[in-house]
Amino acid sequence: MSGRWQAAAVDPSEKPDVIQEEKVTKSHMLDSLNMLMFLGLLILTVVTIWIFKHRRLRFVHETGLAIIYGLIVGAILAYTSKGGGTTSYADITLPDNANTSFGINSPPDDLHLHMSEEDLSHNATFKYSYQGALKDNNRAEPELEEKATFDPEVFFNVLLPPIIFNAGYQMKRKHFFRNFGAIMTYAFMGTTVSCFVVGSMMYGFMQIPFLSGISIGFKDCLIFGAIISATDPVTVLAIFHDLNVDVDLYALVFGESVLNDAVAIVLAGLVAAVEQYSSASGGFDGMAVLHCLGNFVGVFLGAFSLGSAMGMLTALLTKYTQLRDYPLLETSLFVLMSYSTFMAAEAAGMTGIVAVLFCGICQAHYTFNNLSPESQARTKQLFDLLNFLMENFVFLYIGVSTFTFQKHLWNWWFILSSFIAIIVARACNVYPLSFLLNLGRSNKIRYNFQHMMMFAGLRGAIAFALAIRNTSTPERRIVFSSTLVIVMATVIMCGGFSTQMLQWLKIRYCFSPSEPHPPLHSATPGRLAEKARLVRMWYKVDEFLVKPLLTHAVPPLTKTMPKCCYPLALLLTSPSTQRRREDSDTDLIIDDQDLPSAYGDGPELDSSDHKVNNSQDISLHV
Amino acid sequence: MSGRWQAAAVDPSEKPDVIQEEKVTKSHMLDSLNMLMFLGLLILTVVTIWIFKHRRLRFVHETGLAIIYGLIVGAILAYTSKGGGTTSYADITLPDNANTSFGINSPPDDLHLHMSEEDLSHNATFKYSYQGALKDNNRAEPELEEKATFDPEVFFNVLLPPIIFNAGYQMKRKHFFRNFGAIMTYAFMGTTVSCFVVGSMMYGFMQIPFLSGISIGFKDCLIFGAIISATDPVTVLAIFHDLNVDVDLYALVFGESVLNDAVAIVLAGLVAAVEQYSSASGGFDGMAVLHCLGNFVGVFLGAFSLGSAMGMLTALLTKYTQLRDYPLLETSLFVLMSYSTFMAAEAAGMTGIVAVLFCGICQAHYTFNNLSPESQARTKQLFDLLNFLMENFVFLYIGVSTFTFQKHLWNWWFILSSFIAIIVARACNVYPLSFLLNLGRSNKIRYNFQHMMMFAGLRGAIAFALAIRNTSTPERRIVFSSTLVIVMATVIMCGGFSTQMLQWLKIRYCFSPSEPHPPLHSATPGRLAEKARLVRMWYKVDEFLVKPLLTHAVPPLTKTMPKCCYPLALLLTSPSTQRRREDSDTDLIIDDQDLPSAYGDGPELDSSDHKVNNSQDISLHV
Repeated sequence: MSGRWQAAAVDPSEKPDVIQEEKVTKSHMLDSLNMLMFLGLLILTVVTIWIFKHRRLRFVHETGLAIIYGLIVGAILAYTSKGGGTTSYADITLPDNANTSFGINSPPDDLHLHMSEEDLSHNATFKYSYQGALKDNNRAEPELEEKATFDPEVFFNVLLPPIIFNAGYQMKRKHFFRNFGAIMTYAFMGTTVSCFVVGSMMYGFMQIPFLSGISIGFKDCLIFGAIISATDPVTVLAIFHDLNVDVDLYALVFGESVLNDAVAIVLAGLVAAVEQYSSASGGFDGMAVLHCLGNFVGVFLGAFSLGSAMGMLTALLTKYTQLRDYPLLETSLFVLMSYSTFMAAEAAGMTGIVAVLFCGICQAHYTFNNLSPESQARTKQLFDLLNFLMENFVFLYIGVSTFTFQKHLWNWWFILSSFIAIIVARACNVYPLSFLLNLGRSNKIRYNFQHMMMFAGLRGAIAFALAIRNTSTPERRIVFSSTLVIVMATVIMCGGFSTQMLQWLKIRYCFSPSEPHPPLHSATPGRLAEKARLVRMWYKVDEFLVKPLLTHAVPPLTKTMPKCCYPLALLLTSPSTQRRREDSDTDLIIDDQDLPSAYGDGPELDSSDHKVNNSQDISLHV
Repeated sequence: MSGRWQAAAVDPSEKPDVIQEEKVTKSHMLDSLNMLMFLGLLILTVVTIWIFKHRRLRFVHETGLAIIYGLIVGAILAYTSKGGGTTSYADITLPDNANTSFGINSPPDDLHLHMSEEDLSHNATFKYSYQGALKDNNRAEPELEEKATFDPEVFFNVLLPPIIFNAGYQMKRKHFFRNFGAIMTYAFMGTTVSCFVVGSMMYGFMQIPFLSGISIGFKDCLIFGAIISATDPVTVLAIFHDLNVDVDLYALVFGESVLNDAVAIVLAGLVAAVEQYSSASGGFDGMAVLHCLGNFVGVFLGAFSLGSAMGMLTALLTKYTQLRDYPLLETSLFVLMSYSTFMAAEAAGMTGIVAVLFCGICQAHYTFNNLSPESQARTKQLFDLLNFLMENFVFLYIGVSTFTFQKHLWNWWFILSSFIAIIVARACNVYPLSFLLNLGRSNKIRYNFQHMMMFAGLRGAIAFALAIRNTSTPERRIVFSSTLVIVMATVIMCGGFSTQMLQWLKIRYCFSPSEPHPPLHSATPGRLAEKARLVRMWYKVDEFLVKPLLTHAVPPLTKTMPKCCYPLALLLTSPSTQRRREDSDTDLIIDDQDLPSAYGDGPELDSSDHKVNNSQDISLHV
């Protein structure tokens, strides 16, 4: 909606409002054409996926497919529309009487351009707004190409939330919580280690002047480390989910990738802040680091609390109103509350991705039980569909942007170095941490799992979006271009060879989701009883207080709360509690077979076959 | 994403990329906050709608409710955030050595601002892009307010398509096509009449200098006529659909409103073009008018063909592939093809709204029969939900924008005059045309229907979006502000009193969709046989050629095509044709009870209860 038009097409006899109208129309048609291109690519991707499935071809994964289609179209756009429309511009400097508070580091937000006709009969003022710093390229930018460049706001606000929410909503919660300790270790410690290893190695590599050709500061290297250290939940979800790999491995890889986004975002901010404080005080500032670490804990805990609170609020709303009589209203409320969670977290400066993940988990754990059967089916199908469309859209977008992004700076030494650095950093993350974790686990993380985690450290859409958020300096453009190469290489290569790798490492998986998994490892509750005390306590609180409070599950509060609170309990117990089925999924378990397949099977609409379990079943591997 | 930040907050010691990062973060948080506000309002609306339904309150319709909530929040925003963040700006003029092709009517698209530090040690160039003409107000614009202003691109590209598609997809096609002649007459002739009546009357009213206080040209009056003459399908759908009014009345009002959008858009262009040609040639140019009329026919027929073609293409794709084995892929393809139709029409400069309407009709008539049962349910539920959310979002947005729009120009005489003008113009549209139509109809349009059509001439979201597209001159701002008042008045008043009006005019309707309608008027085929010959022919082609070609319906092509074409027919007949049910909905009839209610009932998933009819059933009223 940038409202450009070709300077050549303007007839000076036209009135300003006709010009305005033409601009709007032109811009609208360009927007439509751009959108149409992506829709066409998506259609092509859907049809190709079907052909691949139908003919049982498996040499490239669908995310790789989307990137490849995007690359082809991006290349066509880049090499055909070069001669396209041009944008007129005027070079100016600020007049001497301008406010002196403006400077090279604080350019004005807007410019108001006064123009008058030669005979001074008319004059007008036009408003121009800040777009960014230009340094080297004033060349004409073809219009469709410019439009086809990734807008990180769209990615973070529109495409990402449904993907992550769906991950939480349809997650096998048992396996996630069983491996919670390990997941947190990989996500927080592992990503931090990786960030500093990458940063230091890149700084070292860049010190070789005859190879690097450019001097990049330690700060930019660390920012690159932060951007590139987070593995990507979108890609991992797409590939692993589709392959139905071992549930514990899936939980580890997915859990790490979904939580380390927060780590990456905070690390990038931390690096910038530390550098700023240090340059101000002339030395390294320990307080700044502490401040940033406190900030980090706040951001994570805040997002976790907000997500859970919004999920529980939805549960309360659906329990104590008769919204279930109107499934459309009920589904709408569910969707709106979930999306609000993301926006609230982002608006508060927390991490929306963590908030929406825990919101999804709470919605599945509590709210789902209160919904009418129609809404249960609708919500699952809706998020399935959104997830599929948006995932493919993101990868198409990455492919197209590779060629249409105007400010690429390729530094092949930087790219080569970064591949070495991320492999080393991933190894420094996975193997030592797994060794430490295995000291405390009964269900060891085996070597083949560790190798697979090493291999599955895909960098994807989030790294891409983080890198494109700021391309204002040449260093940042090198970082962005290199990130793009790494994303494409890991998605296409690691994605494409996942199946082979799983076979080679002898990790069970199945293509067809209807094949049942072998039974899970039975936990050894004895050894773990001690460690799991906290979790056990939480489980009891959940089963006897939170669940009866938020859902229609039994036992009702009237039986579980202390006698003295009986009137309150009676008030909070819904009259329909008795009418509900006896078997609830109190236990964080949605059975393995419950996870809907990526395609084909409709989701399980009937939750009556959820496993009834007792508290013995709760065990924790860490 | 305009990337503003508070000038006061900038520390001159910071580097440009830190500034850039802060800008992005700030902008992202503002976007999120803005979105969160709308989500909160939507949640409030959903809960209120439920309370109203639960308590059987009916004194205000939900669209009115959404507008009222929007107004309240818009007012709060406008009166509390005045002191908020300010945007820094610098006043500039073009240097003397600038390109002389720039003028007051052709300002540059971009400005490149060169800045350097005082000691000339560094310099930088910043890019600024054109935002629009500023004339009277350089005052500070609070940030959240500015963000909360309606972006017509979002409305036309994102919110409108699903609403109109859903209308076509879930429409009672029989009644629409039965009344097709009348609908076309009202939509094309009626809207044109109304446009010129409003334009002329407004021009007359504005000639009274001591009342109007401003001189508005005939062209702007005609543009106002074009904007305000189109009745609004969004509002009409929301209100009439919810009330389950008489199907023929519904078809007339809905059909008129959904087609006259095209008329309004083209009329606005026509007025501008004629004025331009006339001023260029110094007089009225008949050729220009003819050219525009030709353009108009092209736009409408083009959109109609494109929509139908895309619907049929989807039918072919779903018939000849085994996509139905993967409902998720099938649903995705369905959604993508439908949305592509809209974008393709807009990109080609045709009217997307007409294209997507006919696409929806074709999808329901052909593609729906090829879909798997899961996809049939999914697509209906999905568009139901999208329709509900987007409809309410649009009305909230209108309410909020009333207060947050910065450039209102209120002219009370213009507003008063416009109310008189639109009432007179609506009367000049409905009554004479109904009289003419009744001359040829056996099933007369009764007086109570005519009065209801008069009353139901709501102006809604489309008039609003057309008006806000161009607010570059004071005249256009008066037009916009007046349109806003008319939209709110007609939606709240006419919407709120629809029920009373229907009772008063003795037109049957029912709140509860489960009450069956009385049987339809039986048509008198004898008198109509002559007129309906074309339709009858089309029906035969549809039943014996198009349907067997595009769907699995019987009779198969092998029976209906001439003997000589047998090999071709065999090729085109799908092997699954024989397996399909015998009763198809060949007949444009989805039974009255089939139309899903606005809330509550899930859509009918099983199409096996569609009426089987024979060709006697096809009759045409006009």
